[in-house]
Amino acid sequence: MNLDKLSQWLITTNTDVAYISDPISINYFTGYSMEPHERIFALIAFKDKPAFIFAPELNVEEAKNSAWNGDVYGYLDHENPWAKIAELIKKRVDPKKIAVEKEHLSVVRLEYLQQALSDSDFSGNVSPFIAKSRLIKTDEEVEQLKKAGQEADFAFQIGFNALRNGVTERYVAGQIDYQLKLQKGVMHTSFETIVQAGKNAANPHLGPTMNTIQPNELVLFDLGTMHEGYASDSSRTVAYGEPTEKEKEIYEIDRQAQQAAIEAAKPGITASELDAVARDIITKAGYGEYFIHRLGHGIGMNVHEYPQIMEGNDIVLEEGMCFSIEPGIYIPNVAGVRIEDCGVVTKNGFETFTKTSKELKYIPVKD
Amino acid sequence: MNLDKLSQWLITTNTDVAYISDPISINYFTGYSMEPHERIFALIAFKDKPAFIFAPELNVEEAKNSAWNGDVYGYLDHENPWAKIAELIKKRVDPKKIAVEKEHLSVVRLEYLQQALSDSDFSGNVSPFIAKSRLIKTDEEVEQLKKAGQEADFAFQIGFNALRNGVTERYVAGQIDYQLKLQKGVMHTSFETIVQAGKNAANPHLGPTMNTIQPNELVLFDLGTMHEGYASDSSRTVAYGEPTEKEKEIYEIDRQAQQAAIEAAKPGITASELDAVARDIITKAGYGEYFIHRLGHGIGMNVHEYPQIMEGNDIVLEEGMCFSIEPGIYIPNVAGVRIEDCGVVTKNGFETFTKTSKELKYIPVKD
Repeated sequence: MNLDKLSQWLITTNTDVAYISDPISINYFTGYSMEPHERIFALIAFKDKPAFIFAPELNVEEAKNSAWNGDVYGYLDHENPWAKIAELIKKRVDPKKIAVEKEHLSVVRLEYLQQALSDSDFSGNVSPFIAKSRLIKTDEEVEQLKKAGQEADFAFQIGFNALRNGVTERYVAGQIDYQLKLQKGVMHTSFETIVQAGKNAANPHLGPTMNTIQPNELVLFDLGTMHEGYASDSSRTVAYGEPTEKEKEIYEIDRQAQQAAIEAAKPGITASELDAVARDIITKAGYGEYFIHRLGHGIGMNVHEYPQIMEGNDIVLEEGMCFSIEPGIYIPNVAGVRIEDCGVVTKNGFETFTKTSKELKYIPVKD
Repeated sequence: MNLDKLSQWLITTNTDVAYISDPISINYFTGYSMEPHERIFALIAFKDKPAFIFAPELNVEEAKNSAWNGDVYGYLDHENPWAKIAELIKKRVDPKKIAVEKEHLSVVRLEYLQQALSDSDFSGNVSPFIAKSRLIKTDEEVEQLKKAGQEADFAFQIGFNALRNGVTERYVAGQIDYQLKLQKGVMHTSFETIVQAGKNAANPHLGPTMNTIQPNELVLFDLGTMHEGYASDSSRTVAYGEPTEKEKEIYEIDRQAQQAAIEAAKPGITASELDAVARDIITKAGYGEYFIHRLGHGIGMNVHEYPQIMEGNDIVLEEGMCFSIEPGIYIPNVAGVRIEDCGVVTKNGFETFTKTSKELKYIPVKD
C-alpha cells in the first residue's frame, strides 16, 4: 500500500525511477528490514513496472524469505554494484528522470549512480515525499508505538529499582538493556540508554559514564526500544534520596511546562506555538536560557523524524501525527531535568505512549 | 598530529577548507566522540587557520570538556546551521575551494552548504585522504585493537557457556552483551551480536532470532566490541552436541582456508591474492559457490573500513594494516560456518587480535 503511494508520486511528478537507499524507508515500503553497513542496499521503484530490491548477495536469501514478495537481486563484493543497478534499471525502462533520497544518499554514491546512468537526470528528490507519507500514522502504526511505549515504562521500573549507592551509571543502563532483552525480548533499544546522575544530567546527550550514583541527587533516564520496527523514546528524572530545594524547583517547573504542552497539543495548533507553550513557562520562571533544545521531535520507524516541534516550524498539527514533548532544564555543573513522553495527536488532544508517573519520585537511598 | 596531516593535505591540494562530517573522522582528528543523530556536527579545518568544531548546542559543553582544545561553536534547534557555518568560515578565510567528505555527506546537506556558500567550489573530496591516513595503524592504535580483541575472546567464553537446550539465540546474545557490560565495562558492541544455530547460520547477516538452540547442530557467533574508540570483530563456529559428518567437513575446510590465509598475510602480497589463497582451498573442496563474500575488511575506528580483502583489489599489504580474515561456507537450509580473526600485518607476517582456539569445539548438550 505504501508502495502504491510511491508509484502514484512517480506518476504525478513524471519521474521514471525512485532510488530508495535509507534502510528504514526500504522497510516502510517493503516490510524487509536490514542494516547493510557499507554495502549497497536499495529499493528501486518505477512509475509502471514492479519494484525490486538490490542487496548484497549475503542478504538475498533473507530478503526473499521476508515480507517482500517482489524481485531481489544481489551482487558479490568484488562486483561493481552500480553497473549492475544500471543494467537492471535499463532492462525495464529508459530512465530519463531518476529521483534519489537526498536526505540519505551520500554524495559519492550519487556520483557513482550518475556515472553508471550518465544520460539520466538525477535532480529529483524523493525524501520530502517519504517524510510526508510517514507523517500521519495509521492505527496499526500507533498500536506498535504504544507497545514500544509499554516497553519503555517497563524499562523505567528496572532502572529505578537498580539505583543504589556506588553503582555506576553504566551498570544501571546495563541492567535496563539486559532485562529488556530477557523479560521483554527487546533486541534493539532505539538509541543508547542514558542514565545520568547529579551534574552529569546537565549535559543532555552525555552517554552513561563510570560515574557512581551518590545519595541525594537527581538521576535522569532517557531510553527507548524498538518494537516491530517502531520506536519508543521517553525520559524521567527521579530523586535518589533528598535533592536540594533548587533541584525540586526546576523539576516542578519542567513538569508544569511538560503538562501544559501535553494539554495544548491538538489538531490546529502549530509546532511553533506548541513549543512556545512549554518554553514560556520555563522562561517566566527564569530558566529559559537553560532549555537549550526544541520541545520535541516526531517519532515512528525512526526515533527522530518529522514533525519537529520547534520555534519557526509553522506546520499545523493533525490527528495521527506522533512526536515527543520533552522540555528540559540543564544547569551546568549543578543538575539537569528532562521529562519526555511521546504520543499521538487525537481528534481532540494528545495521547501519550508512556504512562510512568511524573510526580517527582523519591527513591530511598540504599547500599 | 592527525590534524597536522589534514592541514598538510589542504596545502598540497590548495584547498581552503575541509568540511568533515563523519563522527568517526571527527573523533580521529579531535579526540571528541559524539553521535549527533539528525543534527549537524562538523569539524571545519583550514589550510592556515585553527580548526573548529560545530555542534548542536546540546553538545557544546561536552565538546569543550573533551580532548579537543580548539574552538567549539553551537547552534540551537531553531537556528539555521548552514548560515552559521558559512559565517564562521567567512570570518576566517575567503573559501574558494571547499572539500567535503563525499563518502559521508548526504546530497541534501551538500546542497545546503552550496546555497550558504554559493561562491565556493565544492568539487573536492577529502574522504580518500582520510581513508588513506587511517590505513596504516600506529602502535597505539594496534594496542587498542588488541584490547578490543581480548574483549571479544571473553565474549566467546560467555556465549559458549550459555548454550543449552531450548534457550533462544537472542537469550545467548543477551548474555554476551550483558556480561560484557557488567564484567568488562563494554558499553558498545561494534555491531549487533550475532548468534545463529543450525540452518540460521546459512544466512550470514541474520540477527539473532527467537529460534531455540537444539542438540547436535553448529552454532555460529559473530561479535565485536568497541574499546576506546577501536573495534573488534571475530567469529567462531562451535558444535553443540554432535554435528553431521558434512558439517564437520565444511568446518574443517573453512578452518584450513582461514589458517592458510593467516599464514600468507604479510607485506608484499596484494589483497586480491590473499583473498584467492582462502578461496582456492574452498573452491577446490567443491564449496566455492557457498563462499559468498570477500575474505575480509579493514578494521580500526570503524568495524568495516579499508583495505577490503577481495578479488580485484590490487592494494599491496603493508606493515600496520589491520583487517579481518573470515572465510565462510553457507549452505542454504543446512548450516553455515565462518571463522574470523582480525589482526595486523607485521614485519614478516600477521598477528591476530583474537586468540580463541579454532579447533572445532564440542560443547556437551545440557538442559
